[in-house]
Amino acid sequence: MKKNVTFADIAEYTGFSKTTISRYFNNPDSVTIENQEKIANALEVLGYKENKLARVMANGKTEIVGIIIPDLYMHYYSDILDHIISTYETYGYKFIVFAGNDDADTERRYINELLAYKTEGLIILSHTLSSKELSEYNIPIVTIEREDEYVCSVNTDNYTGGMQAADVLAKSGCDVLIHANSDFPESIPAYGRIVGFSEFCESNNFEHRIMIKDFGGNFEENLENIKKIFEEIEETYPEKKIGIFMPNDTHANILLNIIVKKYGTLPEKYKIIGFDNSPVSKEAVIPITTVGQQVDKIAEETMNLLLMQINERKKRRPKPLEAPVHKVLTPVLVRRETTN
Amino acid sequence: MKKNVTFADIAEYTGFSKTTISRYFNNPDSVTIENQEKIANALEVLGYKENKLARVMANGKTEIVGIIIPDLYMHYYSDILDHIISTYETYGYKFIVFAGNDDADTERRYINELLAYKTEGLIILSHTLSSKELSEYNIPIVTIEREDEYVCSVNTDNYTGGMQAADVLAKSGCDVLIHANSDFPESIPAYGRIVGFSEFCESNNFEHRIMIKDFGGNFEENLENIKKIFEEIEETYPEKKIGIFMPNDTHANILLNIIVKKYGTLPEKYKIIGFDNSPVSKEAVIPITTVGQQVDKIAEETMNLLLMQINERKKRRPKPLEAPVHKVLTPVLVRRETTN
Repeated sequence: MKKNVTFADIAEYTGFSKTTISRYFNNPDSVTIENQEKIANALEVLGYKENKLARVMANGKTEIVGIIIPDLYMHYYSDILDHIISTYETYGYKFIVFAGNDDADTERRYINELLAYKTEGLIILSHTLSSKELSEYNIPIVTIEREDEYVCSVNTDNYTGGMQAADVLAKSGCDVLIHANSDFPESIPAYGRIVGFSEFCESNNFEHRIMIKDFGGNFEENLENIKKIFEEIEETYPEKKIGIFMPNDTHANILLNIIVKKYGTLPEKYKIIGFDNSPVSKEAVIPITTVGQQVDKIAEETMNLLLMQINERKKRRPKPLEAPVHKVLTPVLVRRETTN
Repeated sequence: MKKNVTFADIAEYTGFSKTTISRYFNNPDSVTIENQEKIANALEVLGYKENKLARVMANGKTEIVGIIIPDLYMHYYSDILDHIISTYETYGYKFIVFAGNDDADTERRYINELLAYKTEGLIILSHTLSSKELSEYNIPIVTIEREDEYVCSVNTDNYTGGMQAADVLAKSGCDVLIHANSDFPESIPAYGRIVGFSEFCESNNFEHRIMIKDFGGNFEENLENIKKIFEEIEETYPEKKIGIFMPNDTHANILLNIIVKKYGTLPEKYKIIGFDNSPVSKEAVIPITTVGQQVDKIAEETMNLLLMQINERKKRRPKPLEAPVHKVLTPVLVRRETTN
């Protein structure tokens, strides 16, 4: 076994002091270009293996970010995780990934683990801990589509998304516009969808209805609850043309499958629109019209906002943000076949 | 800002030597239970924050494992990632996740990054680098469902899976059994499905056919190629009852959607079976019969096999494995509605 190459070995080989070698690793620009090249050459000849952990101990830059997502069942989450880890090619940050389970103590353990590794920042998609509590960890944080009063966040403009959904359903000739969604507080960005949808319908005098339901936390529960919603719609509006805005594409797809299984197709009397533009919307038996979140931009803006905070802290006199920054991205309507 | 609590602070507070404090962190059992409790109490009083990186520098245990998955588009991969990161609750290992993109140099960069962080082991699902090359990194590795001659692996018994698929289709009364799959070398475990399917049909004298096709690498390409496969089947066997074994549930779902869109249902003349039992199979418009991989067991066995290698290396005189260990798990048939 070859022994590890040490700073002493490199110093001996190059004729520089160990201090110079150390400066090369921790503050390369303090060494002349010429000497940088000599040292780089020595590293190659000696077969030096970079030990990032050793560097981290010296300069605190782990280049690791922690992510907590609620689950990988919802297609939106696996899509966004995919885009976030792909930012490695642009920013060089690596990601330690945890899947939350709605239990506050579990999530606190995850965060403590991540902090013990000197993770430079956190990206939080789970809803379990309040933004107040998150902010008290006092490290760079960006949340996505959750309550964010005390921390930086990247969200989609849900209000506009709700209006877009109502507008598409109205234009497709529906008599009644329905939005089914969960019961959540106004502090959750997705609440804006309900407001945008309602206000659009009211100001345009469309008959509409908000159905607040508990969808449950897994596919079996989702299926059972969405079946009930659909039965209620069938019974209440036998003669009308109904436009249904579902809370996300996963749930829109479940509704679509229930209808197609019953009728063999999506009958003229039903129009469906989802939210997210996650892969399931285009892969559905009838491709689903959806209010698209710009997942690639969300991933990019999340990293920008996180790096802004991370880089500020590395300055000699860091100025903490006076208030959290909330980036809001415009949703993009994706017309497919369920609103034709 | 409170200054960091050092070993010296803990030593002063407890009256123990710094060596004892260091032993507490790196080899707790070398300190009496009584003294462990005194030190633990001191840590609490002093508000000591664990710095795992400092411990790693001392004992080499990062408790981090690197994962490279090919993508998060295939439902099987996001399902298996979900199960692997959930093993944190059992084993305490954290995961840095990379998504490969079929480019060997990119994947080598990922591995070098992971090694620079002293990742204790690697879990590789991507197919890009040969197991020979992987083995030369000389760190604990487990691969899942890919070529594995020179490294430890956990795979499903694909041969049995192929036989199960043929058996179900035969019993559902099909005249012709078809297996569509990609063109891959015999060294890939999934090749066993083709062999198991063919041998079952031959020894039972069933008319059968293997359709080797390029499915492409994303949904649009999959859709286009599976449409062609279905058109070919429709033209070739207008009068026969056809059983189709697809290479995975993602592709089985695409085929099912093509058929349901055309006929409004799955006609009696077609039976479909997928592979993996990934979530899409039960979420499909008509729940899909599938040869299930035991993803929870795969995740568990993968961690067991990785930890066996990791723990061996920590011994004073580690004995390297004489040959790679290949765990093979039995597939479990999941009957749903596409073979009724």
